Amino acid sequence: MGIFSKDIKTMDDLFLHTLQDIYYAENQIVKNLPKMIEKATNRDLAAGLKAHLEETKGQIERLDQVFKKLGEKPQGTDCPAIDGILKEADEIAGNVEDKEVLDAALIGAAQAVEHYEITRYGTLIAWAEQLGRDDAVRLLQTNLNEEKAADKKLTTVAERKGVNRKAAS
Amino acid sequence: MGIFSKDIKTMDDLFLHTLQDIYYAENQIVKNLPKMIEKATNRDLAAGLKAHLEETKGQIERLDQVFKKLGEKPQGTDCPAIDGILKEADEIAGNVEDKEVLDAALIGAAQAVEHYEITRYGTLIAWAEQLGRDDAVRLLQTNLNEEKAADKKLTTVAERKGVNRKAAS
Repeated sequence: MGIFSKDIKTMDDLFLHTLQDIYYAENQIVKNLPKMIEKATNRDLAAGLKAHLEETKGQIERLDQVFKKLGEKPQGTDCPAIDGILKEADEIAGNVEDKEVLDAALIGAAQAVEHYEITRYGTLIAWAEQLGRDDAVRLLQTNLNEEKAADKKLTTVAERKGVNRKAAS
Repeated sequence: MGIFSKDIKTMDDLFLHTLQDIYYAENQIVKNLPKMIEKATNRDLAAGLKAHLEETKGQIERLDQVFKKLGEKPQGTDCPAIDGILKEADEIAGNVEDKEVLDAALIGAAQAVEHYEITRYGTLIAWAEQLGRDDAVRLLQTNLNEEKAADKKLTTVAERKGVNRKAAS
């Protein structure tokens, strides 16, 4: 939520503003995921991130639909939070040489991204329910479910697929 | 994780670096929570944030202990993620006039902070387990449990205590 967020007067304004925030965030994620995929060595991690990149594109389409239902044009607003999270992901990825340690770092970074989205969708859904926008709730809930599943999948790759074990050995 | 994060070679380095990241984050949260408490109108929200401020100070003490167990001096490292999340919280709080809408916005902002901490502690615990640092796991798990409880409490304030309902009316 950025410098253009003046004059939020009602819950409808706040909801629209936060929708623009996550819209910007999802679009930044689409731009940044390919770099992370390129750096990943573990095959399950690379495949998981690739699948999530495609999923994210579908999430943006769902957000387009939410804007449409509100009678608003889809657009983003500055989001220093996702900018910071992605900057941190980029920095850490650039500072780890060992490929297995890098995989562990990438998973941590990707999970920070997921958790940002999980909290924003959770908030948006609560507000949409309160505003009686059941049409928006359904679309946002689908995105939230996908983010939660992506987060769990990353945990599985870290723990069961042995990324952390290999990195620590 | 910031510009001083060069030369991460091992999982021990990555663990220490991420510990410094959350140490910086917790300290920034202690600095920023009073502003949010001051802006909150709903009594349950203000009380909840105040309680969490005290809790956060205890979490920093636990992190001090983790550093000590590693034989390292407690210190932070730049963390663009928490800086961005807090900047966004500050901006949104400055752009909402209606007190009830502001309460709803503050809850959303505070939950974004909680989720950042939840993901970092989750990652740190997984790495500490892999590194056989059970002493660190116990301390970090206590912090994680507190963050998860704080996040749930914020949801309760938003939904059961009627912040969202009042804000939308």
